[in-house]
Amino acid sequence: MKSNIELSASKWLNTPTPLSIESLRGKVIAVFAFQMLCPGCVEYSIPQARKAHDFFSENDVAVLGLHTVFEEHVAMAEVSLKGFINQYGIKFPVGIDKPSNNPNDPIPMTMRKLSLRGTPSLLLFDKTGKLRINQMGHVQDLVLGAQVANLVNE
Amino acid sequence: MKSNIELSASKWLNTPTPLSIESLRGKVIAVFAFQMLCPGCVEYSIPQARKAHDFFSENDVAVLGLHTVFEEHVAMAEVSLKGFINQYGIKFPVGIDKPSNNPNDPIPMTMRKLSLRGTPSLLLFDKTGKLRINQMGHVQDLVLGAQVANLVNE
Amino acid sequence: MKSNIELSASKWLNTPTPLSIESLRGKVIAVFAFQMLCPGCVEYSIPQARKAHDFFSENDVAVLGLHTVFEEHVAMAEVSLKGFINQYGIKFPVGIDKPSNNPNDPIPMTMRKLSLRGTPSLLLFDKTGKLRINQMGHVQDLVLGAQVANLVNE
Amino acid sequence: MKSNIELSASKWLNTPTPLSIESLRGKVIAVFAFQMLCPGCVEYSIPQARKAHDFFSENDVAVLGLHTVFEEHVAMAEVSLKGFINQYGIKFPVGIDKPSNNPNDPIPMTMRKLSLRGTPSLLLFDKTGKLRINQMGHVQDLVLGAQVANLVNE
Repeated sequence: MKSNIELSASKWLNTPTPLSIESLRGKVIAVFAFQMLCPGCVEYSIPQARKAHDFFSENDVAVLGLHTVFEEHVAMAEVSLKGFINQYGIKFPVGIDKPSNNPNDPIPMTMRKLSLRGTPSLLLFDKTGKLRINQMGHVQDLVLGAQVANLVNE
Repeated sequence: MKSNIELSASKWLNTPTPLSIESLRGKVIAVFAFQMLCPGCVEYSIPQARKAHDFFSENDVAVLGLHTVFEEHVAMAEVSLKGFINQYGIKFPVGIDKPSNNPNDPIPMTMRKLSLRGTPSLLLFDKTGKLRINQMGHVQDLVLGAQVANLVNE
Repeated sequence: MKSNIELSASKWLNTPTPLSIESLRGKVIAVFAFQMLCPGCVEYSIPQARKAHDFFSENDVAVLGLHTVFEEHVAMAEVSLKGFINQYGIKFPVGIDKPSNNPNDPIPMTMRKLSLRGTPSLLLFDKTGKLRINQMGHVQDLVLGAQVANLVNE
Repeated sequence: MKSNIELSASKWLNTPTPLSIESLRGKVIAVFAFQMLCPGCVEYSIPQARKAHDFFSENDVAVLGLHTVFEEHVAMAEVSLKGFINQYGIKFPVGIDKPSNNPNDPIPMTMRKLSLRGTPSLLLFDKTGKLRINQMGHVQDLVLGAQVANLVNE
């Protein structure tokens, strides 16, 4: 049985092979949807993803970034994202959300599919690949720590 | 069977009845040992205790403060602690660690019993009353959230 | 000619001799009115006073604390203030605002005289002893730096 | 008489006309040299520049950004800088430091001329156009406020 929701990434950085919810079956997956020029993402979301990546075991939890660009597409193209990842020392995998097939639609595919309302957004998938939390804005570190641990313990 | 370790409090504030590890059996217990004039406690530990108290269900987790005064005893007497609790809007129960029976020993009883090395210190007891974590210094919010959730899920 | 406004302190700590606006004539004087159990004072005002004390030359600028207790008087008595000063490593002189002669008036004398509306409050006196700024709440560091420098340059 | 040091900018953003130290003669000039993907610049320098721009009168002080890209040139090209300025709501003028004529030299012209050692760097020019402070790293807000005020008062 396939996961009911899948990420649509045109490319994956910081990982030797492309990732998917399906391929990570058996782990809790925390996806941090962000834009590299979104101040709230840079101040809160990226540091939080880094803490989660540092703390949880990779055997239990996959921490992923997803670059969901819905504005300033040229400013946040792949080459700039790579510079951002490098300068901020991001070690976890980052997917690039696939642009819409409709050239007039600025919203990329995963963002559209999951009805994300902006960045940062946090997606938590359980070990069976089911999307359990989809929340926009800043989630407190303490709350995230508990939510992820709860899913790991299921 | 009694809990193997018990708090020694001369008084409890913010609670109608005195508390103990024994009386809270069945809940995870997070004890934040602090001094009201310890800068690191005020900046990190008290806000963290407040977040834990706000987030976790009182049915699952008891968040307690423990005023473990080992220096400046007169400056941090009960009347000042009450003012501190009031001004900082602390809603969770706070116990006052019992002074040593030896008047030459500045270390209060619980602090001595658990070999706490200073403030802030975090104590996590599991639902059976067993002390599982005893850590000095600042614990990241994300880590605390996960640790408490892990104990709740046991 | 005497300064038009004078501090009323029952005691001075961290200084060998009592201080006054009059005695500091010739220097810019920055008075940080605070209460040791006021969260905004502890988080913003005391660190700011410390930075001002570290940066400006003592020949040009006198940085003073003034403990203006208008609530929880017993909790914030002199013995506790001394513990606070010690634990927070405060090096600049701190005056204790003199209690009102009227035992029913919780507002101390300087606070009443200058119509301070609460804590923290910042008072800036110029080199002639004239009160030039009387502002409640947090003043940005950049603004304070400029304001003090402006008075020094007069 | 011309200013002894001039900025070399290939382009100016957020201003109807190109700027120079010479053209701003009579004002104190605070130049914040930054890179849009430098974490310390984003966390400290840009917010500080914004505060300085908000607080000081434009008649007295010109606050400028200078995008001194010395690494990841393609990632931080003009189109991305424009997105950064837009997303971070930067209102002050930002010059783009002119690339070296030597295609093998990653250091742009102003950066080379002033021997800037990295980003962020702060440059303060007095009202006669003379460079008075050239400091790498984070300058405390209080210190900057005083330094700029001192130059304004000259």
